[in-house]
Amino acid sequence: MKITSIEAIPFAIPYRTPVRFASGEVTVADHVLVRVRTDDGLVGVAEAPPRPYTYGETQTSIVSVIRDLFAPALTGTDPMARERIRAVLGRTVGNHTAKGAIDIAVWDVIGRSLEQPVTSLLGGHGGSMRVTHMVGFATPAEMVQDALEVRERHGITSFKVKVGRRPLQLDVDACRALRAALGDEVELYVDANRGWTAQEALTAVRLLEDVGLTLLEEPCPNDDVLERRRIVQRSPVPVVGDESCTRLAEVARNLLDRMSTVVSIKTARTGFTESARIVGLCEGLGAETVIGNQVDGQLGTLASVTFGSAYASTSARPGELSSFLAMTDDLLAEPLTIVGGRLAARERPGTGAEIDPDKLARYRTDT
Amino acid sequence: MKITSIEAIPFAIPYRTPVRFASGEVTVADHVLVRVRTDDGLVGVAEAPPRPYTYGETQTSIVSVIRDLFAPALTGTDPMARERIRAVLGRTVGNHTAKGAIDIAVWDVIGRSLEQPVTSLLGGHGGSMRVTHMVGFATPAEMVQDALEVRERHGITSFKVKVGRRPLQLDVDACRALRAALGDEVELYVDANRGWTAQEALTAVRLLEDVGLTLLEEPCPNDDVLERRRIVQRSPVPVVGDESCTRLAEVARNLLDRMSTVVSIKTARTGFTESARIVGLCEGLGAETVIGNQVDGQLGTLASVTFGSAYASTSARPGELSSFLAMTDDLLAEPLTIVGGRLAARERPGTGAEIDPDKLARYRTDT
Repeated sequence: MKITSIEAIPFAIPYRTPVRFASGEVTVADHVLVRVRTDDGLVGVAEAPPRPYTYGETQTSIVSVIRDLFAPALTGTDPMARERIRAVLGRTVGNHTAKGAIDIAVWDVIGRSLEQPVTSLLGGHGGSMRVTHMVGFATPAEMVQDALEVRERHGITSFKVKVGRRPLQLDVDACRALRAALGDEVELYVDANRGWTAQEALTAVRLLEDVGLTLLEEPCPNDDVLERRRIVQRSPVPVVGDESCTRLAEVARNLLDRMSTVVSIKTARTGFTESARIVGLCEGLGAETVIGNQVDGQLGTLASVTFGSAYASTSARPGELSSFLAMTDDLLAEPLTIVGGRLAARERPGTGAEIDPDKLARYRTDT
Repeated sequence: MKITSIEAIPFAIPYRTPVRFASGEVTVADHVLVRVRTDDGLVGVAEAPPRPYTYGETQTSIVSVIRDLFAPALTGTDPMARERIRAVLGRTVGNHTAKGAIDIAVWDVIGRSLEQPVTSLLGGHGGSMRVTHMVGFATPAEMVQDALEVRERHGITSFKVKVGRRPLQLDVDACRALRAALGDEVELYVDANRGWTAQEALTAVRLLEDVGLTLLEEPCPNDDVLERRRIVQRSPVPVVGDESCTRLAEVARNLLDRMSTVVSIKTARTGFTESARIVGLCEGLGAETVIGNQVDGQLGTLASVTFGSAYASTSARPGELSSFLAMTDDLLAEPLTIVGGRLAARERPGTGAEIDPDKLARYRTDT
C-alpha cells in the first residue's frame, strides 16, 4: 500500500455564536481538510484548524506546506511506516496542525485498510469519554445560559471556563455565577490562555477557592518563567500546560521545569503518533493528561475522542469535545452526538469519519 | 474476538556453552512458553525467561502466576483491548517477564488477526536491526575466539563485553585482547551487571580509555545511589541502565536522578505495550535507548527485533540479539538467521513465530 496523494482543502463554516477567549476569538471555522489517498483506493481524512495565536499557522500556510513540502515528500510511502512519515514531517520545523492532520489521516487509512477502529489499534481502552464543555467570554448571565443549555441538551456536567480578562472581577463573577447556577455536582475549571499575570492568577484562585475549581490552565505567559513556576508552587489547583506543551520535548521541559503539573494533549497539533509518545512521557513522569480542544470541528473532535478513549490515562479526566456545538454546520456526513455527557469513538474502520461531498462542495473556498 | 486460554509451558533447552556474567550464569534455557488462544482459533506465542537475580522470578513462579492469576483474569477479554489487559496485569506487582510474555503473545494474536507484521503495527520503521553480540566471562583467548567466530559466521561487528570481575585486570585484559584481535572498526562496550564498585568502574573506564568503549552498562549496585551518580558525572562513556530500569516509572526516576544516561529496553520484561511507553518517555527526555537481551531464546529474540526495528530511536544502536546462538536447539520451527550482522523482523502476520510441535514435546518439562 502506498500513498498516492495528499490534498489540503481550505473550507469555511460559520459559527452560530463566536467563541471568545483571552488569546483570540473564532467566528468562522477556517479549517483545512486533509485527505490522504492510497493506491488501493482508500481515503483517510483529518482536519487542521489554523491557530496563528498558538502556532503561527494560517489556513494558507497549512495548505501550502502540505501541497509544497509534505505531499511530494510522502507520496509513494507506505502508510504503515509511521516512523518514516514522522521523520519526513520532522524535517520541517513547526507547522503543528498541518503535521497533526497528516498523521491522523494516515492512521485513518491504516484503520480502514485493517478494517479496525483506530481507537482499538491505539490501545482499546474504552469506547467513549466524558465531555467537558468550554464556556467562552460573555456576560455572566450569557455564560450561565450556555452552560445550562449544554447540560440540559447533552448531559454535560464538566465545564472549562475561559478566563484571563481584566479587571479580574469579570472572571470571578462569571465563575461564581456558574457555580451558583449549576450546583456543586458539576466540575468547573478555568483557562486563562496566558491572559493574566502570575499575581492575577494567584489572586484569582484565592478569590475562587470556595467555588471549587479543579484545574488552572495556562494562567500567564509561558515566557514569564519564574512567575509561572511561582504559580505552580503556590496554586492549590493543578496547573495545566497547553500552549506551552506543543511538542514532546516541550512537554518534558515544561514538566521538569515545574511550569505545569498536568498536560493538555491535542491531537490537532501532535496527531496520534506523537501524542502516544506524550502519553508514555506523562505516564512515566506521573503527570496527568487532559484531552484538549483546538476549537475543532466534528472531524477534529472525532480524532480527539478516538485517541483519548484509547488509553486509560487519557480518559481519566473528561475531554474537551464539544466546540463543534457552536458551528452552524459541519463536513461530517453523520453528525457527532453527545449523549448523557459522553461522546463515543466510532466502532468503524479508521476514525469512522465520512465527508459529505455536497457539504464539502458548499464550504470549500479553493474553487 | 476473545481470549479463551493462556497456557504457560515450562521447557528446558541446554546451552552449548554456558553464558557467564557478573550477576549469574545460564547453562540451560529453563524458560516458559506462553500461548494465548482466541475463540476464532488464533494462537499467539511468547517466551518468558526466568531471571531470579534480576527480577526474583523463577520458572515455577512464572508458570504459577500465569495459571493462577493472569489466565483466569484475562480469559474472555478482547485481545485488542491492551489497555484493559495492562490494567489487569498491573494489579499484580512484579512478575515482569510473565507480564511481558503475555503482552507479546497478545500482540502476536493481534498481528495474526489483522494479517499484519507486529513491527508494522507498532511503528514500521525498518525491517531489521544491526546486532550486538554478548561476550561472556572466559579467558581473554576464549572471549576473542568467540567474538572472531561470531564476526566470521554472522558478520557481527558490535560486541558487549561482560565485565565486573575482580581483580579488575581480568576485565581490562579481556577488553584489550578483544580490541587487539578485532581491530578498530568494531564497536566494544561493557556491562558489569553491578559487579564493580563505583571506584572500580571509574578506574576501569580510565584504564580502558584507549580501547574506545562506547557504553558502560550497570557499573555498580543500583542501591549505591550517590556512587552511581558519581559514575554518571565522571564517566567519559554514557552509562546504560538495565536492571535499574525495569518499569516505566523506574526509567523516569533513573534518568531524572542521573543514575543512567541511556536506557536498555527489554521486551522480555516490559512487553510491547509498556516498552512503547518507555520509548515515548526516553524520546521526550532525550535519552538514548538500546534494545537489550534477557539471554533470550529465538522466540524472545524475535520479539526484541520485532519491537526494536519498529521505531527510529530504538534501532539507532545495534540490538542485543544473538544470545540464542549459544543454545543447542530452539522451539521455533524456522530458525532465526543473522546475516551480515543484521537480524530481520519477519514480514509475516504477528511476530512470525511458529512453534515446532515435536520440539516442544521434546523440551517441555511439565509432562
